[in-house]
Amino acid sequence: MPSVSVPLSGQRFRVEYSLIAEDEPAARQRAVEIAFEQTVEFPADLTPKGDILEKIVGQVQEVIPTENAEKWRVIISYAAESAGDETTQFINVVFGNTSIQKGVRVESFSLPPAMAAKRGPRFGRSGLRQLLQTPSRPLLCTALKPMGYSARELARLAKDFAHGGIDLIKDDHGLANQPFAVFKERVQACAEAVHEANAVTGYHSLYMPHISAPADEILERALFAKELGAGALLVCPGLIGWDTMRMLADDDRLNLPIMSHPALIGSFTASPDSGISHYALYGLMPRLFGADAAVFPSWGGRFSFSKEECASIVEGTEAPLSEMKFIFPSPGGGMTLERIPEMLAIYGRDVIFLMGGGLHRRSPDLAANSAYFRELVEKMA
Amino acid sequence: MPSVSVPLSGQRFRVEYSLIAEDEPAARQRAVEIAFEQTVEFPADLTPKGDILEKIVGQVQEVIPTENAEKWRVIISYAAESAGDETTQFINVVFGNTSIQKGVRVESFSLPPAMAAKRGPRFGRSGLRQLLQTPSRPLLCTALKPMGYSARELARLAKDFAHGGIDLIKDDHGLANQPFAVFKERVQACAEAVHEANAVTGYHSLYMPHISAPADEILERALFAKELGAGALLVCPGLIGWDTMRMLADDDRLNLPIMSHPALIGSFTASPDSGISHYALYGLMPRLFGADAAVFPSWGGRFSFSKEECASIVEGTEAPLSEMKFIFPSPGGGMTLERIPEMLAIYGRDVIFLMGGGLHRRSPDLAANSAYFRELVEKMA
Repeated sequence: MPSVSVPLSGQRFRVEYSLIAEDEPAARQRAVEIAFEQTVEFPADLTPKGDILEKIVGQVQEVIPTENAEKWRVIISYAAESAGDETTQFINVVFGNTSIQKGVRVESFSLPPAMAAKRGPRFGRSGLRQLLQTPSRPLLCTALKPMGYSARELARLAKDFAHGGIDLIKDDHGLANQPFAVFKERVQACAEAVHEANAVTGYHSLYMPHISAPADEILERALFAKELGAGALLVCPGLIGWDTMRMLADDDRLNLPIMSHPALIGSFTASPDSGISHYALYGLMPRLFGADAAVFPSWGGRFSFSKEECASIVEGTEAPLSEMKFIFPSPGGGMTLERIPEMLAIYGRDVIFLMGGGLHRRSPDLAANSAYFRELVEKMA
Repeated sequence: MPSVSVPLSGQRFRVEYSLIAEDEPAARQRAVEIAFEQTVEFPADLTPKGDILEKIVGQVQEVIPTENAEKWRVIISYAAESAGDETTQFINVVFGNTSIQKGVRVESFSLPPAMAAKRGPRFGRSGLRQLLQTPSRPLLCTALKPMGYSARELARLAKDFAHGGIDLIKDDHGLANQPFAVFKERVQACAEAVHEANAVTGYHSLYMPHISAPADEILERALFAKELGAGALLVCPGLIGWDTMRMLADDDRLNLPIMSHPALIGSFTASPDSGISHYALYGLMPRLFGADAAVFPSWGGRFSFSKEECASIVEGTEAPLSEMKFIFPSPGGGMTLERIPEMLAIYGRDVIFLMGGGLHRRSPDLAANSAYFRELVEKMA
């Protein structure tokens, strides 16, 4: 029987899918179809016997019933080599074509140690806490907005937030390179404002510009931001691609923490029977692909995630995965000062509270509002 | 009232969403919320009056009832400047945060001429037909597979397909840079095989390697492929990001036709009430962002698209959009020789028939199967 032209390591990664099927044989059949679709994409009877059929085609490891008689969990393992050591191809094997099938959802995945060792965040929770010299309380984050403001107006906001002690002062994810606040001018003005405030307050606030940009400009923007004194980077993997985030995390010249924002990826959790689970999409994937903090909309805000879904995201940020660092969950999307106690109760201290519009609500004095936010969190946590 | 710091052109792009709402006032209210969410992401009462509230915030243009009493079409226009001339930010404004909301779907969008002029395919239907010297019949495409084959084995397939007269011989989208057929070796072997066959047959077949790759390697791979004689490029915008495809289309050093593959984006059409329509996702977006041909799974194959959904994708490839070129729909996903007549009836001649496994079914002689495929299509079209 023919073998593939190079020795296979025997290492395999495992993907857990949930799928709709009327009984166990049907579930097993669907699982086998996924195992072929995601690898050889070839009719079973035409697939070469030997290594390809036995090792390259995914292997159905388990078919597990759930409380719902028509829903099954299946675990399929794939040869590490099928992902060719690339984020793009790894995601392709996990869910490329199967994303187009109805009634199949990626619930989770796990990597063998050698694969996990090559991925993950650069800083993680402990690294980011060290940069901010904030060993234990929840971290505070806000966004510079609204779109339409000039670089100067945004920098004034940045200054106020920094004076009030907000740890991470990020661009709103809608700020790109628009003519009213072009990227370079904005980054220079906001980075300066935060540095000047730090010099006065003694705090260690970081300015975090949004750098989702054209593919041929993003690295240049990130390097420019670093040079001008940005302390972290905000990116939307749904807009730039997951591996572009990985590239930024891996670049030693940058050496900056990364926060991922969920723009555009919401459709993956729109249906409970399709797409990718909250756990994997907002927790595990940002972590695996280089983010140190992952933004998602908390329950009780403008979006419709449940408390359980939010808790599962937190699990994804800290699930054991070889020695991969944990990252911060960063719930936002309609957070207010009033909601801090209930959010603390669920998220605990290892969280970044992201409050945008809500921070403008208490009074027109943003520095005072920010200081109040910080005080509240310091008192409670 | 404050105005933004630069004059706005007055040009606006329009997005048509469908949304769930119990009556017209509720639909209008949801539309207004989307218009804020996608731009200033700020509470309406705190948004600065003047230009920002009046021009930067999206404007609800129409609220249209549908046959379903709980479903509405709304059209929102956005200032061209809010997209800052970038694909990433354009998509962000169209659907960034709103992708996370339940019951909202992007149906379509249209651009003012100045925006449309900067986007689109390089070759389009006419350019690709010219390269292939095939003025009017449907084009033929197949994929090199299965994963696990060596570069030499894949090149042998490429040679057979080219001898049989397949126009576009692409890598399967699961071929990346795996150790059993590393990218450079594979591209060299397959490009050579197709060139050698062309020299014998007089055909103009093109080899189309799959170049979805790490963000920091993709341009290099594309340039390498060009140098080695690849005639077109296959990319998965869902894996590499839509703007990375745009970058490859815009690069004058490459000057190669691009085929887009739908890996990972299937979740956007998993629910009829969320995500992005088939028309926009598989037709309009590939075209807008640089593809000359767009692969999607045809009705009647392994996937579950309906005939109507497939027809709407074709519409997206040729909807009037200033002077933007039309692109080829490329239905695949389980096509067989037997299905050519019914597919021709729906897709017409301006189509690329993509047959993978089905082309191996008729006999072990792939050159003969390919020639038969070509003959069938030439006779019927």
